[in-house]
Amino acid sequence: MDFTGKHILSVGQFERADIEHIFTVADGMEPYALRQQVTRVLEGAILGNMFFEPSTRTRVSFGCAFNLLGGEVRETTGFKSSAIAKGESLYDTARVLSGYSDVICMRHPEEGSVAEFSAASRVPVINGGDGANEHPSQALLDLYTIQKELKDKGRKLDGLRIAMIGDLKHGRTVHSLMRMLGLFDRVQFVLISPSELAMPESYIDTARSQGHDITVTTDLAKNIGNVDIVYSTRIQEERFASKEEADVYRGRFRLNQAIYTQYCEPNTVIMHPLPRDSRADANELDNDLNHNPNLAIFRQADNGILVRMALFALVLGVTDQVHKTARPVNWFHSRSVNN
Amino acid sequence: MDFTGKHILSVGQFERADIEHIFTVADGMEPYALRQQVTRVLEGAILGNMFFEPSTRTRVSFGCAFNLLGGEVRETTGFKSSAIAKGESLYDTARVLSGYSDVICMRHPEEGSVAEFSAASRVPVINGGDGANEHPSQALLDLYTIQKELKDKGRKLDGLRIAMIGDLKHGRTVHSLMRMLGLFDRVQFVLISPSELAMPESYIDTARSQGHDITVTTDLAKNIGNVDIVYSTRIQEERFASKEEADVYRGRFRLNQAIYTQYCEPNTVIMHPLPRDSRADANELDNDLNHNPNLAIFRQADNGILVRMALFALVLGVTDQVHKTARPVNWFHSRSVNN
Amino acid sequence: MDFTGKHILSVGQFERADIEHIFTVADGMEPYALRQQVTRVLEGAILGNMFFEPSTRTRVSFGCAFNLLGGEVRETTGFKSSAIAKGESLYDTARVLSGYSDVICMRHPEEGSVAEFSAASRVPVINGGDGANEHPSQALLDLYTIQKELKDKGRKLDGLRIAMIGDLKHGRTVHSLMRMLGLFDRVQFVLISPSELAMPESYIDTARSQGHDITVTTDLAKNIGNVDIVYSTRIQEERFASKEEADVYRGRFRLNQAIYTQYCEPNTVIMHPLPRDSRADANELDNDLNHNPNLAIFRQADNGILVRMALFALVLGVTDQVHKTARPVNWFHSRSVNN
Repeated sequence: MDFTGKHILSVGQFERADIEHIFTVADGMEPYALRQQVTRVLEGAILGNMFFEPSTRTRVSFGCAFNLLGGEVRETTGFKSSAIAKGESLYDTARVLSGYSDVICMRHPEEGSVAEFSAASRVPVINGGDGANEHPSQALLDLYTIQKELKDKGRKLDGLRIAMIGDLKHGRTVHSLMRMLGLFDRVQFVLISPSELAMPESYIDTARSQGHDITVTTDLAKNIGNVDIVYSTRIQEERFASKEEADVYRGRFRLNQAIYTQYCEPNTVIMHPLPRDSRADANELDNDLNHNPNLAIFRQADNGILVRMALFALVLGVTDQVHKTARPVNWFHSRSVNN
Repeated sequence: MDFTGKHILSVGQFERADIEHIFTVADGMEPYALRQQVTRVLEGAILGNMFFEPSTRTRVSFGCAFNLLGGEVRETTGFKSSAIAKGESLYDTARVLSGYSDVICMRHPEEGSVAEFSAASRVPVINGGDGANEHPSQALLDLYTIQKELKDKGRKLDGLRIAMIGDLKHGRTVHSLMRMLGLFDRVQFVLISPSELAMPESYIDTARSQGHDITVTTDLAKNIGNVDIVYSTRIQEERFASKEEADVYRGRFRLNQAIYTQYCEPNTVIMHPLPRDSRADANELDNDLNHNPNLAIFRQADNGILVRMALFALVLGVTDQVHKTARPVNWFHSRSVNN
Repeated sequence: MDFTGKHILSVGQFERADIEHIFTVADGMEPYALRQQVTRVLEGAILGNMFFEPSTRTRVSFGCAFNLLGGEVRETTGFKSSAIAKGESLYDTARVLSGYSDVICMRHPEEGSVAEFSAASRVPVINGGDGANEHPSQALLDLYTIQKELKDKGRKLDGLRIAMIGDLKHGRTVHSLMRMLGLFDRVQFVLISPSELAMPESYIDTARSQGHDITVTTDLAKNIGNVDIVYSTRIQEERFASKEEADVYRGRFRLNQAIYTQYCEPNTVIMHPLPRDSRADANELDNDLNHNPNLAIFRQADNGILVRMALFALVLGVTDQVHKTARPVNWFHSRSVNN
């Protein structure tokens, strides 16, 4: 697939070769994200960063990715004061806003809204999250992170063993991740959740038909011992009748250093779509894991920059030119994507 | 008039020659807006985009116009958390903010506020809308659009026939447009509104004294048949005693494809200041006109970029230098201002 | 102290030599702030301007300072929709956001929050205000302004005579300013406030132990006659039992042209941390002082740009390179930092 001029709306639009191509381009962005070099390939281009639903980190991540390619960012946050709230159609909004920029990243609270918007847009649109539906750059950065973490251990996405934990019924990220992993070979999925929050059958059926191995369970301790990746997600209180009922579940699907040490293989990689709730009673992913070198959650965020830079370079057709304008960085930089 | 260093506050400050000069400069911005070329003429300059009242499209349009000239944009949105809300005078705000940027675009809910602000500002100020008072860049982009649409048909602003429809009493855009058209020769104005929402006498008297032809009517069907432009505006519910009463009027001043086909000359251009309310009961400007090639509403928005680029280039005195830094665009671009 | 890669969190981290170094760098920024020249030294660098509490002028000032060095700005405003509000720890926020930019400026409503954030950040953090605690760039710009104003009169920070007026108990700015002035020699502090709002003893004791001269008084008229600087601050209504009680105090600690003429030495410099409340009953710092050439309040704001440019250049280690990329400004510029 040639990405030039295309919308990025759904993980469903990618073949395995597309994903591998995105990841190769993302690898090439590392010198810029690590501030070893600067590129100005998109100097003069404008990203319309249209967040009709707030999301600081996704918005800033897209914006920084575009700036790192040399482009400018104009943005909006919130919905209440937007013309859409006053009855303007997504068609009109798209026709107007797409006249202002070279590419648009859009987040919107309603499912399907970004696709509807993109149909009227005159520039490529990247879905930055449309309600419970899709958030393809999150799915891509998760998969990219898994691949990178495995590579350091001499393993690949084919043959991956992954445990997904928490609310697998409503979790947009685990659904997308499962769909994309399905494109690879012989994946072992261990799906750990309260039975009320189990992975929908359709995802399981699809993965089985692709030849993958699926385990569905409510028992965390017994099932996280033979996996490469533990992917933890939040169990949201509002899914339950009471806080007490939610707390029971949260305690049971929690991960901390003691549980990790007792049940996981050494070097099992811990992931989470962030933000995590770090309040004492959240029982999600404990802060005592913060210095565990296998905690990959911040590397996920760092990889998000690489993946989003890759998406921009691909839809704007400049992957071949990124390095031509490269020059050294002349200011202090201490960061490392992998520290 | 030499625009360099001047504030742009009101359509009243322009002579006909000024308007024609702005439009010539706007024409020259097309290669940059169409992404055929990039200019960096304002690289290093900063626009203070101060929106003390929200307006996504106007704010983003000004910001993109400045970015397209190579400059940076710093901005604020909203009023509640501003120092003005805590008792700071516009004088103080202006003295402080004008020390930060090279030019300021300001929107504010109160009439006269932008002029008061500009009096204390040490940099040029462009009025981005001050309550019910003025929004000169909107008026300029409307007039610029009319001129461009007519040019394609071998006609000019002199001798223009225009119908203005809707709330002509409160509409800031139709007031400004009528004032500016008054500077041209032999314009035929057809003013179509409920009698409660008629164009104020002062505008009519001025236009008559300038030798223009004015028709005032409440009947849409009989009066849109001999015009070059139909300029439709919203009839806002809050102007009426009840929703029911408003609905009666809205139905009567609505434009859709059937009405257009039955009553208008072929190629009559349809304009609207946007946003339009596209909800089914809004009865404003129907979505079934979306593929009518004479629907110019999105070209209006596109032309807004050209006009705002021109205003920035003029007040910062760089019109002669824009093209000197021009270079080709190296990324994917599909857009056309006139598509 | 070598500032490269360091966090700027508190005025307590500076020695006298550090302050003098910052001021020398700030002096060198004047050609860029005055738009005599443009520098692109930080082209490609990104500032994360993270304002978890609104402050238009501080946010825009930091952003413009970074733009003036050639860098890009990504920012956030407000707290409610942030991940922190949903239970994310400052540790997580810092780890994520510091992967996006080269330097962070952060404002947050809670004392100590910025220091906690900086401990987990992988890039230098500048405190843009953490509740009642610190706002070091404000303190630096105040001190820088004093030095500059005195220089024109042939005087220095050593031997300075300064009156601080208003709420000296809660005022973050006067506390920080007093601490920093304490590093210089033989300062005469005249502390004028209602006794309920007197400067805390700890600040007085420290200054006395450093050999400075302190006068504590409730009488404004008798005590502003022999000083170089009058530094006025707001007396906030909410500190008192009633508006009436507050009004009594406000009237008594007010400064206007008549009081200035009657009691101050000629050329006494008037300062205020801004914003000032200019409503008629605020009784703070009267608008009739606006054309008094000794009113330095807007020069303070202008100097803020210079000081913030200096801080960015220092923590990113580019002070030696700023001038290497200098080039002339090709657009209209009328501003003068000192007008």
